[in-house]
Amino acid sequence: MGAGHPAQADCRRGVRAALAGLPAGSLALAAVSGGGDSLALAAALAAEAATHDVTAGAIIVDHGLQEESTDVALLAAQQCADVGLAPVAVVPAEVVATGEGLEAAAREARYTALANTAGAMAEEHPMHLVLLGHTRNDQAEQVLLGLARGSGARSLAGMPVLTVREGTPFARPLLHLPRQTTHDACVAWGLTPWADPMNDDAAFARVRARTALAELESALGPGIDEALTRTADLLRDDADLLDALADDAVPDHGPDGVLVADLVDLAPALRSRVWRRLLLAAGAPAGALTAGHVAACDALVTDWHGQGPLHLPGDLRVSRADARVHLIPAVRGQ
Amino acid sequence: MGAGHPAQADCRRGVRAALAGLPAGSLALAAVSGGGDSLALAAALAAEAATHDVTAGAIIVDHGLQEESTDVALLAAQQCADVGLAPVAVVPAEVVATGEGLEAAAREARYTALANTAGAMAEEHPMHLVLLGHTRNDQAEQVLLGLARGSGARSLAGMPVLTVREGTPFARPLLHLPRQTTHDACVAWGLTPWADPMNDDAAFARVRARTALAELESALGPGIDEALTRTADLLRDDADLLDALADDAVPDHGPDGVLVADLVDLAPALRSRVWRRLLLAAGAPAGALTAGHVAACDALVTDWHGQGPLHLPGDLRVSRADARVHLIPAVRGQ
Repeated sequence: MGAGHPAQADCRRGVRAALAGLPAGSLALAAVSGGGDSLALAAALAAEAATHDVTAGAIIVDHGLQEESTDVALLAAQQCADVGLAPVAVVPAEVVATGEGLEAAAREARYTALANTAGAMAEEHPMHLVLLGHTRNDQAEQVLLGLARGSGARSLAGMPVLTVREGTPFARPLLHLPRQTTHDACVAWGLTPWADPMNDDAAFARVRARTALAELESALGPGIDEALTRTADLLRDDADLLDALADDAVPDHGPDGVLVADLVDLAPALRSRVWRRLLLAAGAPAGALTAGHVAACDALVTDWHGQGPLHLPGDLRVSRADARVHLIPAVRGQ
Repeated sequence: MGAGHPAQADCRRGVRAALAGLPAGSLALAAVSGGGDSLALAAALAAEAATHDVTAGAIIVDHGLQEESTDVALLAAQQCADVGLAPVAVVPAEVVATGEGLEAAAREARYTALANTAGAMAEEHPMHLVLLGHTRNDQAEQVLLGLARGSGARSLAGMPVLTVREGTPFARPLLHLPRQTTHDACVAWGLTPWADPMNDDAAFARVRARTALAELESALGPGIDEALTRTADLLRDDADLLDALADDAVPDHGPDGVLVADLVDLAPALRSRVWRRLLLAAGAPAGALTAGHVAACDALVTDWHGQGPLHLPGDLRVSRADARVHLIPAVRGQ
């Protein structure tokens, strides 16, 4: 490991674990915004790549959302090259309105650009992996935003250490480190992080979550970030198992509807998840389906007193007749 | 229902649902502190008892923690009698240090006094039920405190609508109403709630949680109380199912220890719960056992690299040898 600041060692240790499973000759790419977290990630990747048989590069996504974004992207690319990463790609991302806000749209555009670029860069390599610079602070903010939605374990489960999107594996090797560590590591490596003005703009939910976390910490004592990330880890395990059980519990059903008898004896934790699966399969849009919708459907089974049909997002109608519930999608073209 | 403020109707509707399942001639007792939530509960119970064949009374627990506590208790008893409740009992509670703080000790003493008094008062009745005045705000505070502990679904599951303690059923008929409703109902009923100075004392975690909730609301938008109580409802269902599955998954084991093979294939959500059960059965005290302890034990199974024995709370030693893990309780008398 050699000499170095403990923060550098912490970042390198995280990256080392992420690289450990890669076959020789793989391509590891840091996703770099120019902020402190991703610059520390880039430097740690460059340092670790020297002792692994991998090609270590970077991708900088230019959202074009701010006037100076191209300058920021080029400065980030320069710093990635300076720490020894190659190849380094700067790619534009087209932010398309998704109806779920600018933050969500920018995130989707970023993942798509990263996955496509990484896939194209990796042609000659046996495997590729994109590294993301999310820290424990990002995770805690994510959990708090999930809490404000109130939609259960999966929305509190935060970000996983490893995910696959559009065929590209993404790892988050810094997810258990506080932001202070990446900040200290940048100082030790002599890097110049870009301070994104969007990080201070209270118009964004994530920025407000950051403020709220600081207030929670002063109210409930230190360690709230750790408590939230530990909660996320535990609830992610819970949600994984319950989702798998719910997949198996979805009853067979045809055009005649779902038998009430197939739902009523399920444990409530499974029944709500099975309902969600039934509703999504019938065309309800995931983003618009709330716990309240699911509870209203469930009442058709558990608290049946002749209530009328439910009208759900995506023009879906759910009703009960005798021993069956019917999920009737909107008739297209009308 | 007749005329009345909507807040009175909301409180009465909650109490009515709680009384619905009681056999004729039962005894329903409001647990009254003298604060607004429990006074509204008492008045709602008196109003509803008139149309149910139940005897409706109250128990006031005098903690003796504050100088004026006896005056507060007697004033509460008078107001209970004035709204028409009978019998009304005022009982002392002996707060015994439990090592988990004054709030926890006072709560334990209160439940014990309520259960014992209700049991004694109910001798002539076929069934009895104690009603508690917790509101949605209390539930949200409870969830936030659970979040700060970071110990998973059960600690985020809040308070259930119905529990049984020491043989006495307890119901929380106001748990889905905001505190504003009980406040408005007290005004409409002409009741004089006591403002507990402990409710403003930031020495208490619950008071700090209340402050933090107000700050969360201003950061993340209105509705955080509802989101937290909805989260509690969903996670309580999850925890109930996962706890039942874990009960079934605890492997048979004797003095030779637990076979690693019996643990390693369990889903992580079950394995952490099975570990908790094994450690509690071996004598670890529940209050001292953290998610970190459980994770360290789990690493003996999932990340075995010859690590030494673990020393856990309650003088419990956990170690691995070959294909087994051993849980060795403290030798008594040494």
